[in-house]
Amino acid sequence: MSASDVVTAFIQAIERMDVEGACALLADDVSYENVPMSPVPGREATRAVLERFVAPCSRIEWPVKRQMSSGNSVMNERVDRFEINGTWVELPVVGVFEVNDDDRITLWRDYFDLETYMRQMAPHRPS
Amino acid sequence: MSASDVVTAFIQAIERMDVEGACALLADDVSYENVPMSPVPGREATRAVLERFVAPCSRIEWPVKRQMSSGNSVMNERVDRFEINGTWVELPVVGVFEVNDDDRITLWRDYFDLETYMRQMAPHRPS
Repeated sequence: MSASDVVTAFIQAIERMDVEGACALLADDVSYENVPMSPVPGREATRAVLERFVAPCSRIEWPVKRQMSSGNSVMNERVDRFEINGTWVELPVVGVFEVNDDDRITLWRDYFDLETYMRQMAPHRPS
Repeated sequence: MSASDVVTAFIQAIERMDVEGACALLADDVSYENVPMSPVPGREATRAVLERFVAPCSRIEWPVKRQMSSGNSVMNERVDRFEINGTWVELPVVGVFEVNDDDRITLWRDYFDLETYMRQMAPHRPS
C-alpha cells in the first residue's frame, strides 16, 4: 500500500465508525495532534478519543476535497461531518499524516478552527 | 515554474515583506480564504489585507515544514511568524493553493485556529 492508500483506508474506517479498523492502521506510538490542543500520545489514547467522538454519532462522513503525498507524508483537505441528534456538525480540516514502512500511521495532525467545532457541538453537550 | 515554485516564491516575497512582489504572483481573481473567516475576493482586496498584516511587523518568517503538490494544487504546512513590538506572534498553518497556467495563484486558503492568533495579537491592538 502507498502512504496515500493507508490514509484513505483510515478515513474510510472512520466513516464506517469502525474504531477498531481505524486503530489497526495506527502505529503503537502514533502521535494524534489536533493543533490547537495537546497531542494525544499513542494508539490506545487515540482509540479512547476516537471512541468518544464516534459514540454520539449516527453517521460520519469525511469527504476528501484533495489529497497529495510526498514520500511517507500525506496531506488531505477534508470536511469532517458528524451527524448527531439529527443535525450535521461540519468542520473544515486539513490533515497531515506520516506513514511508516509497515503501512501504519505514525503522525496524524489536523489543522482546523477549534471555535468552529465548539460552537456547533455546544447544543449536543450535557448541560 | 512549477506550481510549487510559484508558491515558494510567494512565501519568500511575504517573508521579505514585499507586498508588491507577492501580489505580482496572484491572479486578478484570486480567492484568499482564511477558513474561519469570509473569503477575500480578488488581488486588490488581498493586497489591502496583506498591507494591513505587514504594517506592524519588523520581521516576518514563514518557515515551511513540508510542501507537496499534485497537478496545479499545492499544500504546505508552515509556522507563520510575525515580529511585532519585539515579540513574535506564531501561528501554525496549512495552506492550500491552486496555480494557473500563467504561474499565478488563483486560490490561497489557509487553515488555522483563529483564537490562537487573536490571543497573541491582543496585546498589539489599539486599546
